[in-house]
Amino acid sequence: MADKKDDKHLDHIRHTLAHVLSAAVLELYPGSENSIGPAIENGFYEDFEIKGKISDDDLPKIEKKMREILKTWKGFERKEVTLEEATAAFPNNKYKVELAEEFAEKGDQLTLYNAPNFIDLCRGGHVENPSKDINPKAFTLTHIAGAYWRGDENNKMLTRIYGLAFETKEELKAFQKQQEEAKKRDHKKLGKELGIFAFSDLVGKGLPMFLPKGNVIKTELEKFIRDEKEKLGYKFVSIPHIAKAALYERSGHLGKYDAMMPIMTDDDGDQYVMKAMNCPHHFEIYNTEPHSYRDLPLRVAENTVVYRNEKSGEISGLLRVKNLTQDDTHHFVRPDQIESEIEMILDLMNRVYGLFGFNEYRVDISIRDSKYPENYFGDDTLWNKAESILIESVKKWGVDYHVEEGEAAFYGPKIDIHIKDSLGRSWQLATIQLDFNQPENFNMTYTGEDGKEHKVAVLHVAIFGSVERFLGILIEHYGGVFPLWLSPVQVKVLPIADAHKEYAEKVSEELAHAGIRAEFDDNNESLGKKIRNWKLEKVPYALIIGDNEVKDDVVTLESRDAEGKETLSPEELITRLTQQINDRT
Amino acid sequence: MADKKDDKHLDHIRHTLAHVLSAAVLELYPGSENSIGPAIENGFYEDFEIKGKISDDDLPKIEKKMREILKTWKGFERKEVTLEEATAAFPNNKYKVELAEEFAEKGDQLTLYNAPNFIDLCRGGHVENPSKDINPKAFTLTHIAGAYWRGDENNKMLTRIYGLAFETKEELKAFQKQQEEAKKRDHKKLGKELGIFAFSDLVGKGLPMFLPKGNVIKTELEKFIRDEKEKLGYKFVSIPHIAKAALYERSGHLGKYDAMMPIMTDDDGDQYVMKAMNCPHHFEIYNTEPHSYRDLPLRVAENTVVYRNEKSGEISGLLRVKNLTQDDTHHFVRPDQIESEIEMILDLMNRVYGLFGFNEYRVDISIRDSKYPENYFGDDTLWNKAESILIESVKKWGVDYHVEEGEAAFYGPKIDIHIKDSLGRSWQLATIQLDFNQPENFNMTYTGEDGKEHKVAVLHVAIFGSVERFLGILIEHYGGVFPLWLSPVQVKVLPIADAHKEYAEKVSEELAHAGIRAEFDDNNESLGKKIRNWKLEKVPYALIIGDNEVKDDVVTLESRDAEGKETLSPEELITRLTQQINDRT
Repeated sequence: MADKKDDKHLDHIRHTLAHVLSAAVLELYPGSENSIGPAIENGFYEDFEIKGKISDDDLPKIEKKMREILKTWKGFERKEVTLEEATAAFPNNKYKVELAEEFAEKGDQLTLYNAPNFIDLCRGGHVENPSKDINPKAFTLTHIAGAYWRGDENNKMLTRIYGLAFETKEELKAFQKQQEEAKKRDHKKLGKELGIFAFSDLVGKGLPMFLPKGNVIKTELEKFIRDEKEKLGYKFVSIPHIAKAALYERSGHLGKYDAMMPIMTDDDGDQYVMKAMNCPHHFEIYNTEPHSYRDLPLRVAENTVVYRNEKSGEISGLLRVKNLTQDDTHHFVRPDQIESEIEMILDLMNRVYGLFGFNEYRVDISIRDSKYPENYFGDDTLWNKAESILIESVKKWGVDYHVEEGEAAFYGPKIDIHIKDSLGRSWQLATIQLDFNQPENFNMTYTGEDGKEHKVAVLHVAIFGSVERFLGILIEHYGGVFPLWLSPVQVKVLPIADAHKEYAEKVSEELAHAGIRAEFDDNNESLGKKIRNWKLEKVPYALIIGDNEVKDDVVTLESRDAEGKETLSPEELITRLTQQINDRT
Repeated sequence: MADKKDDKHLDHIRHTLAHVLSAAVLELYPGSENSIGPAIENGFYEDFEIKGKISDDDLPKIEKKMREILKTWKGFERKEVTLEEATAAFPNNKYKVELAEEFAEKGDQLTLYNAPNFIDLCRGGHVENPSKDINPKAFTLTHIAGAYWRGDENNKMLTRIYGLAFETKEELKAFQKQQEEAKKRDHKKLGKELGIFAFSDLVGKGLPMFLPKGNVIKTELEKFIRDEKEKLGYKFVSIPHIAKAALYERSGHLGKYDAMMPIMTDDDGDQYVMKAMNCPHHFEIYNTEPHSYRDLPLRVAENTVVYRNEKSGEISGLLRVKNLTQDDTHHFVRPDQIESEIEMILDLMNRVYGLFGFNEYRVDISIRDSKYPENYFGDDTLWNKAESILIESVKKWGVDYHVEEGEAAFYGPKIDIHIKDSLGRSWQLATIQLDFNQPENFNMTYTGEDGKEHKVAVLHVAIFGSVERFLGILIEHYGGVFPLWLSPVQVKVLPIADAHKEYAEKVSEELAHAGIRAEFDDNNESLGKKIRNWKLEKVPYALIIGDNEVKDDVVTLESRDAEGKETLSPEELITRLTQQINDRT
C-alpha cells in the first residue's frame, strides 16, 4: 500500500488531470462549462454541461487531446482575486460563478489557477510541472455517467467523465488487470451462475434469497464461526428480531439512527421497530440474572439478522443489503479483563481469517481527541488504559495500524480491521468496540470480590461482520472456486455408461450417509461432457465409475485442483474427505 | 378419548350443572341475576350480576347448596312461550329479557325450563333426570373471574363462576391430578427455573429471548428436523424476513390476514411487510429457474421465523408468540406424485414424533362441501383424487381420523395432526395442505414428459409447526427432564475435594472436545450439596471424581434416570455417550 506522502502526490496528479480534462473538453466542445473535478480513489472525474453530443466513443479523442495539452503545461500561475475578478474570469460559466459567490460568502480567499489557454477557480492541490510530473501513459478515461449538479436531484443533470490515473504505466496496467479479474469474479455474476443467491422484484431490492447451494455456504460459515466461538466458551442465545421502540430509546439508538425501520403499533399501544443492532437485546439477557465477578467474562453470542432501510442506490448484491446476518458477540468483562479479552479476540480473528487465506491486515485504532476530554463518556483513567490496551494489543499482534485521534465514539475507543483479498483489494471486516456507556444506560453490574456492585465493561465484536457481505467477498476472493468444506457440492459421481449407474448411485449414497455432499450425474451424456460440466460447476472432486470400478468396488478420483487420477476404495475416500472437511481445508 | 355420543351426554351434564349453579347462587345471593351458562371443555360456567360480595372462598358453600338442589331436581318442565310470557317470567332479570327479545326478533321459538323453585330461558340440552344422571361427587367449582356481558368491554363486568364436571368421580380426580401435574410442569415456570427463556418488558410481550440453555434445545430441535429432511433430499434455502407488500398481494394474503405487520416505505416508495408466511418467498425461489418433470418433487425447506401481531391477551409463554420459527417445507410435485409425497411426509412425521414419545395421533381431514363445488378453486377430478388420497393415506397410516366436510380451504384440502402428550393432553402440531391455487397466482410450471407446460401442485407442510410452541409443549411433556440429546448440560463433573479439581477439569475438557456438553462444578461445597444441585438441574449424568478416580484415571458415573454407580474410563464414557447422543436418545 502507498504511504500517506505518496497518497498526497497521487492526489495532486489526479486533481491536475481533472483540469487537463476540462481544458480538453472545452477545446473540443466549445461553449461547454466545467464545474468540479476532484481526485478520487484510483483516478479523477470532472462534471460538465456539454455543448453538443458526447458518448463513451468520444473518450479516446478527448484522451488524445489531453496528452497534447499536458505537454504544454509547465506549471500553474496562482492568483488571489476578489469576487468581482473571479466572476469576470468566467463570463460563460454559471457553475464557476455560483461557486465563487458561495466561497466569497463564507469569507474564503478566492484563487484562480492559469495554465496555457485555461483558467480555473480552484483551491489548489496540483503537481508543480504537469508536463514532467504526470506520465502520459499512466492515465486513461474510462466512462461517462450522469450526475446532478452538487448531487441534488432538483438541479440540472451534468455529464461526469471518469478517468483512472497512477504514477506509472505499470500501476495503471496492474489496476486495469485487477479490475478485469474482479469483473470476471463479480459476485453478482458468479452468484447467479453458481446458483448461490437470487433477487426477486416481488420480494424487493436488497433482500437476497439464498438458493440451496448458497444456503449450504452460508450455513457452513455460520456453523464455523459458532464452532470456533463455542470452543472458547461463548454462550449462544437467540433473540427476537423486533423490539419495542422503548428498548432503543434506552440504548439511545432511536432517532439517531436513520436506517431503523419502524413497525406497527400493537393493541397495547406499544410501538415496535425491527432490530438494527443486537446490543440492547443482549444487555437485557445479561440483566436476567445477577452476576458475580467470578462469572466474568461472559460472552453472549449469536448469528442473527439486523435490518437497515438502506437507500436503493446504495444497495449492491450481497455487499450492502437490507437484512444482514451478524456474527455478533457482546463480551461482558471486568475492567481488569479488557486486555486479555482483546488478546483472545485478536487470536480468534487470526485463526478465522487465516482459514480463508486472509493473512494481511490493516488496522485503524480510533481514540479520543485528547484536546476535548469533556466530549467523552466515562472515567479518564479507564479511557487512557483502554486506549493503550488497544494499541498495545494490536502492536503485539504485529500488524500495520493507524491511530486515528478523535475518531472514537463518545462511549469508547475501537479497532477496525481491514483484510486484503486475493486480488489485493482491501475490505473492512471486524470491529472491536469498547463501551463504557451502555452499562450505565442498562445498569449492567456485577458483584465484585469486595462485595460491592460495579459496572461491567462491554466489548462489541463481530468477526465476519455481515455474513452476507463476507460471503459476497468470498465469492470474489475465490472466484467461485470454494474450498472443499464450503463447496455446495463436494463430489460429483460420474458413471461412464448406463451399466455403471447402479454402482455410482450406491457410492453417492454412501458418501451422503457419511455427511459428504455428493451428487450423482445420471444424465445420458458422454463422459467428456460430464467432466466438462463437473469443471464448470467448480466441484472439488469427481469420481469416474466404469467397468473396472464396478468390478473391483473402487472409485477413480480426479481433483479440480490437481492433475492425475487415483484409484481407491469408497471407504478410503470417505475417511480422507471426512478428515479434509473436518479440518476445513 | 370419549366418542361423539359420550361427548353429548357430558355436555348435557355440564350445561345442566350451570342451571344448578344459577339456582344455588340465586338462593344464596337473593337479588342476583344469572345470564348465560354453557358447557365448556371439562366443565361449565355461568355469568352473574351478583347482589352482594362473592369470592373464591364462597365456592364450597355454593357447591354444597348445588348438591342439595341437585337431589330435588327430577326433571325439567319444558314450555314454549311468547315473548310476553318469557319477559313476564323474569321480572328481575334484565339479561334474560334482553336475550328473549333478541331470540324473538330472530324468529326463534322461545322456551322456558322449570325445575323446583327455578325457571330459566334456555334452548335445552339437559340430562333427563339431574338427581340421577349427575354424580354429585363428579363436579366441583374452581374459580371466579370477571367477564363482560356478551364479551363486549363496553358492557357491564359480570362475575363468571367456573366448574369442572365429569361423569365419574374418578374422571374428575384424574383430571384434577393432571391439572396439578400440568401446573408443576408449566413451561413458563420451568422455563424460568431452568434458564431456558426470558421475557423483557423493554423488548416487549410475546417476544421470548432464548437464554444459552434454551438456545441449545432450540438449536438441537432445528438441527434434528433439518437432518431428517436433508436425509430425504429436501433443499434448504434462506429467505429474508421482510418483503414488499406486492409479494403478499400476489399471494392474496395481504388484507385478508389481520396479523400481518406493515413496515415503513423505502425511498423507492415501495411498501414492506414482515413475513407472516414463507410460501410466496419459496414460490419466487421455485421460479428462479425453469423445471422439468424429472426435477420433481422439489422440496424447498427452511427453519425460519414468521411474525404475527398477536393480541396481547392471546400471548402465552412460548405457546403463542409474536415471532415464531416454522420448520416449513413447500413440496412442488406433479399431480401424479401427490400420493407418494404424502406417504413420505406421514412416514417422516411418525419418525419425528416417535422420537419424543408422541405415538398417539388424532387427525382431522378437511374436504370440500360437496353441495357447493363452485366455492372451490381447481379441477373437480383433481379435488376428488386429492381428497381420496388424503383419506387413503391417513387410513393406511392407521390412526384415528375425522373427515370434516366443508372445512377445506378454497384452494385445497388439508390434514391437521394432533398429538397426545405425557399428561394425555392433545396438541395440534402438523398441517399438510394441498394447494392448487398458488401455482396459478405465481404461474409455477414444469415441462412435462409431453414437452408442454403444466402447473405444479404444492404441499405446504410444517412438522413441529412453531418451534417455540413445540419447545413449550416439550418442556411440559418432559417436565423439564429432557432426554440426553436435548439436555442443555449433559454431564456434570463433580470433584469431591480440591485435590480432585484438576483431574475433573481435564475430564470435562475431554468431554467438551468430543462435543459433549459437560459442566465442571468447581464450587467449594460438599459432594452431597453438589449432587443435590445436579439433580435439581435435571442433568442426565454426573461424574463423581475422588481419590480412586484420579489414581486410576477413571470416572464414576451416576445417572439421573437409574439407580447405582458404574466406574469406567473417560474414553469408554465418551464412546457410550456419543453413541447415545447420535441416536438422539
